[in-house]
Amino acid sequence: MLVRGAVLLVLGLWLSNPSPAAEPKSADASSAAAALRAADQEWLRVFAAKDLERSVAMCLESGSVLAPNAPRATGQQAIRALFAGFFAIPDLTLAWHPSDARAAKSGDLGYTTGDYQMSFKDPSGKTVSDRGKYVTVWEKQRDGSWRVQLDIFNSDVPVEPPSQ
Amino acid sequence: MLVRGAVLLVLGLWLSNPSPAAEPKSADASSAAAALRAADQEWLRVFAAKDLERSVAMCLESGSVLAPNAPRATGQQAIRALFAGFFAIPDLTLAWHPSDARAAKSGDLGYTTGDYQMSFKDPSGKTVSDRGKYVTVWEKQRDGSWRVQLDIFNSDVPVEPPSQ
Repeated sequence: MLVRGAVLLVLGLWLSNPSPAAEPKSADASSAAAALRAADQEWLRVFAAKDLERSVAMCLESGSVLAPNAPRATGQQAIRALFAGFFAIPDLTLAWHPSDARAAKSGDLGYTTGDYQMSFKDPSGKTVSDRGKYVTVWEKQRDGSWRVQLDIFNSDVPVEPPSQ
Repeated sequence: MLVRGAVLLVLGLWLSNPSPAAEPKSADASSAAAALRAADQEWLRVFAAKDLERSVAMCLESGSVLAPNAPRATGQQAIRALFAGFFAIPDLTLAWHPSDARAAKSGDLGYTTGDYQMSFKDPSGKTVSDRGKYVTVWEKQRDGSWRVQLDIFNSDVPVEPPSQ
């Protein structure tokens, strides 16, 4: 796995991470940004609960999840396989928090971006922590809900040079 | 560095990568998507030429570039430092191509997403290749140009397990 580093700050950040609000441009933009933040955190809620069907259902059938060191997963079937792999990682804990959210004036497209914290047990039983950043692009549906068109993330942690 | 793998497919892809068009939703949306693709490839042109000032100038002052294994670079000063680091990598070649581009109906926000190919020489002089994927979020300016609010990418290449 890519993830390196030792500090176990996951739980603390999980409970108390501040999310500074984006500068609102108008009442509509502010309301749409709040709806995007809510969708972002609803996705976290079902993901952290390892609810595979609800986690996948937040993504559009045309949507893609772009995980590091894996090919682009496009469509709900490929995204389900990717998430099932995540949920099978021993002792996985994961949280993310949007530091910015913005919707287009037309309210049909928007994004959230922020930081994530993750930890899990590697095959030797050692707890590994990771932290990084993400961008999620959302599309508003006819029923007013926001769903994921694109999600991509990567680690902040520097990579150690190869040992040979 | 993260990048692993051996196949030197960079130059071939650079010259001939196909870019399947997104399904246009209207003449406006199609025109905006074309403008986004053009902005995406203009950014590649100045980046591949290692033109630091023009590469940075494509990014908003509020913009962020989210590179793997590095902290989020927000603002033109931080982005300039990040890009200067890239341009100092020996024998760096880099290309990317949008496979999808979409703008909001209001035409103020949009994204491009696609694949990248990269190669460079590591400290031992060995050529290293990488390939991966990216998402760029663009905001349209008053003068009609599109500039980068968010750019994030990660590798497709699996990571080798730690050697110890």
